[in-house]
Amino acid sequence: MLIVMKMDASERELDDVLERLSQSGFSGHVSKGVERTVIGVVGQTYPELREIFEILPGVDEVIPISKPYKLSSREFQPEDTIVRVGDIDIGGDELVVMAGPCAVESEEQVVETARAVKAVGADILRGGDFKPSTSPYSFRGLGPEGLEFLACARAETGLAIITEVMGPQDVDLVSRYADILQVGTRNMQNFVLLDEVGKARKPVLLKRGLSATIQEWLLSAEYILSQGNWQLILCERGIRTFETYTRNTMDISAIPAIKKLSHLPIIADPSHGTGKWELVSPLALAAAAAGADGLMIEVHPNPDKALKDGPQSLNFDNFELLMSRLALLATALGHNLRSRRSPGGK
Amino acid sequence: MLIVMKMDASERELDDVLERLSQSGFSGHVSKGVERTVIGVVGQTYPELREIFEILPGVDEVIPISKPYKLSSREFQPEDTIVRVGDIDIGGDELVVMAGPCAVESEEQVVETARAVKAVGADILRGGDFKPSTSPYSFRGLGPEGLEFLACARAETGLAIITEVMGPQDVDLVSRYADILQVGTRNMQNFVLLDEVGKARKPVLLKRGLSATIQEWLLSAEYILSQGNWQLILCERGIRTFETYTRNTMDISAIPAIKKLSHLPIIADPSHGTGKWELVSPLALAAAAAGADGLMIEVHPNPDKALKDGPQSLNFDNFELLMSRLALLATALGHNLRSRRSPGGK
Amino acid sequence: MLIVMKMDASERELDDVLERLSQSGFSGHVSKGVERTVIGVVGQTYPELREIFEILPGVDEVIPISKPYKLSSREFQPEDTIVRVGDIDIGGDELVVMAGPCAVESEEQVVETARAVKAVGADILRGGDFKPSTSPYSFRGLGPEGLEFLACARAETGLAIITEVMGPQDVDLVSRYADILQVGTRNMQNFVLLDEVGKARKPVLLKRGLSATIQEWLLSAEYILSQGNWQLILCERGIRTFETYTRNTMDISAIPAIKKLSHLPIIADPSHGTGKWELVSPLALAAAAAGADGLMIEVHPNPDKALKDGPQSLNFDNFELLMSRLALLATALGHNLRSRRSPGGK
Amino acid sequence: MLIVMKMDASERELDDVLERLSQSGFSGHVSKGVERTVIGVVGQTYPELREIFEILPGVDEVIPISKPYKLSSREFQPEDTIVRVGDIDIGGDELVVMAGPCAVESEEQVVETARAVKAVGADILRGGDFKPSTSPYSFRGLGPEGLEFLACARAETGLAIITEVMGPQDVDLVSRYADILQVGTRNMQNFVLLDEVGKARKPVLLKRGLSATIQEWLLSAEYILSQGNWQLILCERGIRTFETYTRNTMDISAIPAIKKLSHLPIIADPSHGTGKWELVSPLALAAAAAGADGLMIEVHPNPDKALKDGPQSLNFDNFELLMSRLALLATALGHNLRSRRSPGGK
Repeated sequence: MLIVMKMDASERELDDVLERLSQSGFSGHVSKGVERTVIGVVGQTYPELREIFEILPGVDEVIPISKPYKLSSREFQPEDTIVRVGDIDIGGDELVVMAGPCAVESEEQVVETARAVKAVGADILRGGDFKPSTSPYSFRGLGPEGLEFLACARAETGLAIITEVMGPQDVDLVSRYADILQVGTRNMQNFVLLDEVGKARKPVLLKRGLSATIQEWLLSAEYILSQGNWQLILCERGIRTFETYTRNTMDISAIPAIKKLSHLPIIADPSHGTGKWELVSPLALAAAAAGADGLMIEVHPNPDKALKDGPQSLNFDNFELLMSRLALLATALGHNLRSRRSPGGK
Repeated sequence: MLIVMKMDASERELDDVLERLSQSGFSGHVSKGVERTVIGVVGQTYPELREIFEILPGVDEVIPISKPYKLSSREFQPEDTIVRVGDIDIGGDELVVMAGPCAVESEEQVVETARAVKAVGADILRGGDFKPSTSPYSFRGLGPEGLEFLACARAETGLAIITEVMGPQDVDLVSRYADILQVGTRNMQNFVLLDEVGKARKPVLLKRGLSATIQEWLLSAEYILSQGNWQLILCERGIRTFETYTRNTMDISAIPAIKKLSHLPIIADPSHGTGKWELVSPLALAAAAAGADGLMIEVHPNPDKALKDGPQSLNFDNFELLMSRLALLATALGHNLRSRRSPGGK
Repeated sequence: MLIVMKMDASERELDDVLERLSQSGFSGHVSKGVERTVIGVVGQTYPELREIFEILPGVDEVIPISKPYKLSSREFQPEDTIVRVGDIDIGGDELVVMAGPCAVESEEQVVETARAVKAVGADILRGGDFKPSTSPYSFRGLGPEGLEFLACARAETGLAIITEVMGPQDVDLVSRYADILQVGTRNMQNFVLLDEVGKARKPVLLKRGLSATIQEWLLSAEYILSQGNWQLILCERGIRTFETYTRNTMDISAIPAIKKLSHLPIIADPSHGTGKWELVSPLALAAAAAGADGLMIEVHPNPDKALKDGPQSLNFDNFELLMSRLALLATALGHNLRSRRSPGGK
Repeated sequence: MLIVMKMDASERELDDVLERLSQSGFSGHVSKGVERTVIGVVGQTYPELREIFEILPGVDEVIPISKPYKLSSREFQPEDTIVRVGDIDIGGDELVVMAGPCAVESEEQVVETARAVKAVGADILRGGDFKPSTSPYSFRGLGPEGLEFLACARAETGLAIITEVMGPQDVDLVSRYADILQVGTRNMQNFVLLDEVGKARKPVLLKRGLSATIQEWLLSAEYILSQGNWQLILCERGIRTFETYTRNTMDISAIPAIKKLSHLPIIADPSHGTGKWELVSPLALAAAAAGADGLMIEVHPNPDKALKDGPQSLNFDNFELLMSRLALLATALGHNLRSRRSPGGK
């Protein structure tokens, strides 16, 4: 932590800051520049200190130097975290594809989609069942019944299942069905929920908040890790900007940035990220090229009739086309699509 | 499209409407509020539908949703909603001031602050006790013990209390202490929590989300209203933009915009909106000039020793100065500071 | 300037940085913290240094401490700059009102509007004649002919004139007619134009760019000041955010922020800031309450028939109403509307 | 609404259309391009107008502007525009790479870099010589002398040259040296400059503005096209958002979006887009995977000694590595790196 004094700070004010530091168990190294004086604080600081010192007389600014997240940082754990779901490794050499409908609508729809996406190489079935919705009058999901449909689809196809959990009271229920618990965009800073999935014994996928910085996202990850759950995957799904042509703006740079700052695996969701099915495939390829560990793609038997987010869902044909392009790209860049690893792989 | 059932509509009438919808190729999402039931129609609607459904028994009104929010709209209720807390009216002719520390730290700190803010005209005591925090390592509030401190301050001063509720499981507990339940910025789209406070029998203050549009904010309000709780106040507290000089960007335009679009009262929180105490008073005056029904101001006996958000808190002297300027401005523009209404008003 | 070393930086890397500093004529004060080492750079630094040092081996981050603007800073000149236009002082005790049509359309329209706004207390006539337009097919202004119309209106009413200059080649021409040269939002970083108006002998009004930070805005001001033109006024006119209900988001906080950081006068343009005439008056009052030195308001005889920006223009009646409310507010807060200073003031 | 005149329409026919407009209560804004004249209709149009005007003599087409841009739209020209620079086609099957230093510093630096980037497959040399800079105290480029250095590098290597033109008065000068005129981010809505490069007989590269929507970007393109210059390339270089970890946020979705909406070629600049050299290569690959027609990459012999933007420049080794990865990716996806087309291609 650095304490920058005002240009006209007095010696007395400087001394007061140093004494206050000392009382708090820190020492300060004073650097006098031509224009102003800076104090480097020695000792293990914590976020609140900033506020405490920022309003002392003579202090212009307090600059935290240490990154505020720890367990999620690459410094803390240099090697990549690999999250294992059944026989699937997320965060390793392979590109993992999660696909399925935005919302679970019926057993038939889920099972049909599961079969279709598995046939062309998806590894995990996604399907929203407790659905967040900006309007109370929109479809909010089938609830418990839909979890049974997802379980049916798993039984039929062997695909692992990821689905969202919306509140702390549902963590147990959803954990009984899902292989991965998804924390949605709007809940990235629902700290009560983060604590709760941090105590669960299931892998968690944490979507980035609509206007969350990378640092805030890693701090939310920190909530989960600090509760003891290290089976954590991040998911970039677009941020909110001034651009309205796309539903959100995919922040592809966040993928290599997370790879640099953190050991956690990161996947991309171009369906929510763009909101337009025609842009899903180009952005899926882009995310893979930028180093994503996986993709989450909305696929629906009849996007025109989907209860939610039809415009951003691929139909079976377009998804198959995407998978074949992804396989070419992954091979060229030295990754693999998991399903293409070996001819008899699944 | 929304189908609003009459207050006295029977279950049978509801079922008939749903069946008719189903025959027409739609499905209906039923929201049962305390007062009445609303059906959200799922599917691509068309104008003629309105007439078809409006004459069915038990149907009060069919509303095409050009604006997707309904109960919160000025069209639905032309006259201003006034939320009554004790003998305080929020949303009427008077400017209501809520003041107090960002975080409850001790009984002494809360009671001292309560006395100080009451002495210069504040109407309601604010104090965060369950504290959301971006980092799991920061101060997260005193929890149940702190609620007792707030209750003490109320007993001492007669001020009503507003404090935040962070999760659905705490609504009952917090309701036993607070006069107003606050839903924080990061929970504006925590739909599980919105449903729960919608069922509470306490006034609710709903802060705008960090990157929520006005429309999304009113839709979150709609969650609470549609559960039957009409004692709802909105609070503008700054949005996230590219500007980093201020902690957030106060969207003062949202105040007259909400007044136009909705009947709900709206207050402003310039402390979080700016993050800098020197900007709090100018922005408080600006919000009042733009038509806010009230203000929420962070006040702390010793901002430089505050556990949270010291830099944005006013000390007692600055708060008193602000109150006197507010009184002048309110009078000039034909409003009143509630506490100045009558000489013996306090 | 501070140089933050990486956690694992070697002594050798530290020495190399110090030697490089020394070669460049600086000295460095080393502060060794528990986690990492920080070097405070002593000497008059300049922006390029950051980039030079940021990529040296072992360096994690370089943090500039001095603000990059100088001439525009409050430290450089503690007392307020007052820009004098005829007998009008901008930046002093009075609230100056500039009003008029968005675009000059005809002599009649301009003269009629000038008379109307003067009658209720405006000090300066605004009127766009060289018009920036996002589309090449939109009305782009009358050009030289329109400048004559503005001159007529001045002759008729005695009001000073402000109008926009769009390119360096027009500075001479516009200077012959205008009392204040306006540099528009889209040209805030048109550095060629900034240099040119910096050489002009006319007051300049510099609008904030659509996505300009306060710091970038002051750096653009610095271009003009450093060319020798100190007759400079800033104008907050809304920034671009995710919110689409308003055309832009008025950043009212920028007004007291500029007052703190700089000695330059700042006015507000709620017409462009909101894009909706119903919001113009509340935001004009808010800006005045927050400490603006003046306002720029679009007024049109027939907003419905305006060639540009009708929806955000006030008609004469609404403008008169606004002026009377402004007068009350200004008096209450201890400012004055210039025109109300003395009964015979106009 | 736009009225597009036939190529061979007479002045008389034009006048007749304008008179007819006037009689109907509209005015027309005439844009004379090199090839044809377009009338922008001012006033509140309605669908029937289209039929009325489409049959007038000399009128080619009447276009209702749901989309306000026209000439740049895919509807107007379904087939891809290919911009030819020497023997290089931009917008065709090949991925074109422009590389070089952010700023021209010396003849030696430019020539050395030109040789290095050519050796590993770059097609065009980039080098900023008139440099926009947020601060008047930063390096603003060498000016005319630097253009000579670029010409030397072309003479030495045969690479075509792209460099920025900052003001209308420099278009002639820069056109004498450059093969492509670059219009920078901060000038995307410098309409005077757009008009001027629209009249030049050189290809133009138009960078997206910091906070420009895709629609505004295409409208700025429209300025250039409507002046008759169809040799136009777009360049995505990152937009401004709340995220501060990266210098800007690369909007990769804009690449397939532009491909869908427009016939113009689009390239990507991940150096400015990210501001961090470690992110440049992943984002370059991502842009190529998303369908970009080319890339613009900053390369410097000694990034740590660069006068500008060192932190975002690749050194020769990293650039070579990127080129080899790009070649693999392009081949996999069925494009080609131009330089890899034939073994003797360079």
